[in-house]
Amino acid sequence: SANKKLLILPGDGIGPEVMRQVRRVIDWMDRRRRVTFDVQEGLVGGIAIDHYGVPISDETMADAMGVDAVLLGAVGGPKWDNIGFDKRPEAGLLRLRKELGLFANLRPAIVFDALVDASTLKADIVRGLDLMIVRELTGGVYFGEPRGIEDLPDGQRRGVNTQVYTTSEIHRVARVAFELARKRQNKVCSVEKANVMESGLLWRQEVTALHKAEYSDVELSHMYADNCAMQLIKNPKQFDVIVTDNLFGDMLSDEAAMMTGSLGMLPSASLGAPDDTGRRRALYEPVHGSAPDIAGRDLANPIATLLSFAMMLRYSFDMNEDADLIEQAVQTVLNGGTRTSDIMAPGMARCSTSVMGDSIVRVL
Amino acid sequence: SANKKLLILPGDGIGPEVMRQVRRVIDWMDRRRRVTFDVQEGLVGGIAIDHYGVPISDETMADAMGVDAVLLGAVGGPKWDNIGFDKRPEAGLLRLRKELGLFANLRPAIVFDALVDASTLKADIVRGLDLMIVRELTGGVYFGEPRGIEDLPDGQRRGVNTQVYTTSEIHRVARVAFELARKRQNKVCSVEKANVMESGLLWRQEVTALHKAEYSDVELSHMYADNCAMQLIKNPKQFDVIVTDNLFGDMLSDEAAMMTGSLGMLPSASLGAPDDTGRRRALYEPVHGSAPDIAGRDLANPIATLLSFAMMLRYSFDMNEDADLIEQAVQTVLNGGTRTSDIMAPGMARCSTSVMGDSIVRVL
Ligand SMILES: CC(C)[C@H](C(=O)O)[C@@H](O)C(=O)O
Ligand SMILES: CC(C)[C@H](C(=O)O)[C@@H](O)C(=O)O
Repeated sequence: SANKKLLILPGDGIGPEVMRQVRRVIDWMDRRRRVTFDVQEGLVGGIAIDHYGVPISDETMADAMGVDAVLLGAVGGPKWDNIGFDKRPEAGLLRLRKELGLFANLRPAIVFDALVDASTLKADIVRGLDLMIVRELTGGVYFGEPRGIEDLPDGQRRGVNTQVYTTSEIHRVARVAFELARKRQNKVCSVEKANVMESGLLWRQEVTALHKAEYSDVELSHMYADNCAMQLIKNPKQFDVIVTDNLFGDMLSDEAAMMTGSLGMLPSASLGAPDDTGRRRALYEPVHGSAPDIAGRDLANPIATLLSFAMMLRYSFDMNEDADLIEQAVQTVLNGGTRTSDIMAPGMARCSTSVMGDSIVRVL
Repeated sequence: SANKKLLILPGDGIGPEVMRQVRRVIDWMDRRRRVTFDVQEGLVGGIAIDHYGVPISDETMADAMGVDAVLLGAVGGPKWDNIGFDKRPEAGLLRLRKELGLFANLRPAIVFDALVDASTLKADIVRGLDLMIVRELTGGVYFGEPRGIEDLPDGQRRGVNTQVYTTSEIHRVARVAFELARKRQNKVCSVEKANVMESGLLWRQEVTALHKAEYSDVELSHMYADNCAMQLIKNPKQFDVIVTDNLFGDMLSDEAAMMTGSLGMLPSASLGAPDDTGRRRALYEPVHGSAPDIAGRDLANPIATLLSFAMMLRYSFDMNEDADLIEQAVQTVLNGGTRTSDIMAPGMARCSTSVMGDSIVRVL
């Protein structure tokens, strides 16, 4: 059919229950706005290990390759903590990223006006924060070879990983950052440790070269990763778009996320290269984890996953109007004082996962 | 002579002017408390490049090997930004760390009561914060081989660094963390990315093994580095001692430092292995950088360097009473409302570098 094809991977912990709220929005779109998705579901993470013995099966991978976009809940939990390195739930996520070629991870850190007090940072520092971290996602030390643990002759062991980047890996992710910046405040800050690591020096040189050749209209600055970890705390609003490698991006995007005070609100997108028709493979997922401690108790905040779905509408399907509608519905519900436990504040009304879903669908 | 031997390396930027205030305290100790240091001075960083063409000369390295402790100001500045990778000011610092074998970097993050409002975090979150980050300093991706940038046949380039740790490297730094914890709140949190990197998995396994064998009285937890970057912001007081690798430690200790709101206050110590007499090689330096923008203007805060000197008295010379005296003098001056620009607040009296030094020596 010509319908848009979607693969939903609820995953572990709170994944299934937050995903249920997305299904309700999909149903609503189907009923009211006459956009119909062909939705498949699959298993990833611990639940896939339980069923298939692997964190993602070849069949599910094939499904992921065949759809227009993947929406993921969360993976992992204590049950699978002591499983071998290659079999752990996270390996399913890493395989998806690698085989779908999702090299650009977009991690917005946005502070909603209604939630400004949820941050542990002073309101002045974070009010109105809207920064975008573009994290390289299929390279660097996450995937570099050689890697492993070896026994040394003297009875010791040695653990090795390889941090590696090439010109084209750097260019393609920097390109995503420059393009995004053009639609925002037109500022990119590129982050590495060029003072210590040659891979970081190459990163800096290649970003600089690409900027000069194709994006000189965008304001470009460079920052060391340790300084960036500081500057985010000192004055996060100095940034518009940050582009950085896989490992630095992992830490800096989580730092920025926590600064907003509401992890349960933050979506993410992971994009591949455009094909001939300009379409990119894409995976969308909330920033929060599987939260095994509250799983199955109808307590989790479904908004990050709903906003990930909205990001999908925007980036994969150019359905900006529908994405706006969902984002506005979320704002309206928040402004009305409805809060899941994670964002609860004095004077607000505490609600469950499903009641948050109800409220948003009602506003829609 | 039997005097304690000290090498002072003021370095670049504000290094010389903050170090001048330490010399005044050394003179005061000489006069009043009858502790005499044999003080040598040397060049490191940009100023060494200007004089000798290298960021640290073999002679200065030999001096550093010959003394009981090294006190460093700061290195670097825009003047030397475009120098080759191996010749840059930072390379002097890295050579000192490596050749002196300073594998344990102690980075306290302390919030002074008088400065609680200087933090961008809410006062409740940081009031009374006193955490210690123990960063591995002579291994990991900073020094791993192979490393470098190579040309590929297709005209691209490839930058490589190697993240590598062995059992003994992990044990010796974890040992420092466990020993410190025993004198503090008895809690160690070990930080890596064992879910993604084998070197991190080895780190986790070896810390666990050492803990079981020798430090089971200390409370040990493990955390992924991205989560740690978040938890520091969410609730920094959950931590007592954090032990982590060179690169994660670089970022996390700077993040924690900025959370205190007063970088100009924070000292650090870098320690080597104990010799037969139990003495360790050691280098002490403020956490802040060379701040070229304010260098030479008598504006910098000398306290971080003074407190680094106090750490030296404590860790290298067991002169706890003298260290206490200096730390108390700093507290007294702060409580009295004297502030350099970086920690200035409404109602306080702004002072220069030298007046801050005056005030502290006067209290002493
Ligand atoms: C689960 C883990 C493998 C993953 C990562 O380190 O990339 C996570 O922290 C993330 O940021 O998506
Ligand atoms: C100057 C630089 C080489 C150094 C590092 O990365 O270790 C600095 O950031 C530090 O933390 O002491």
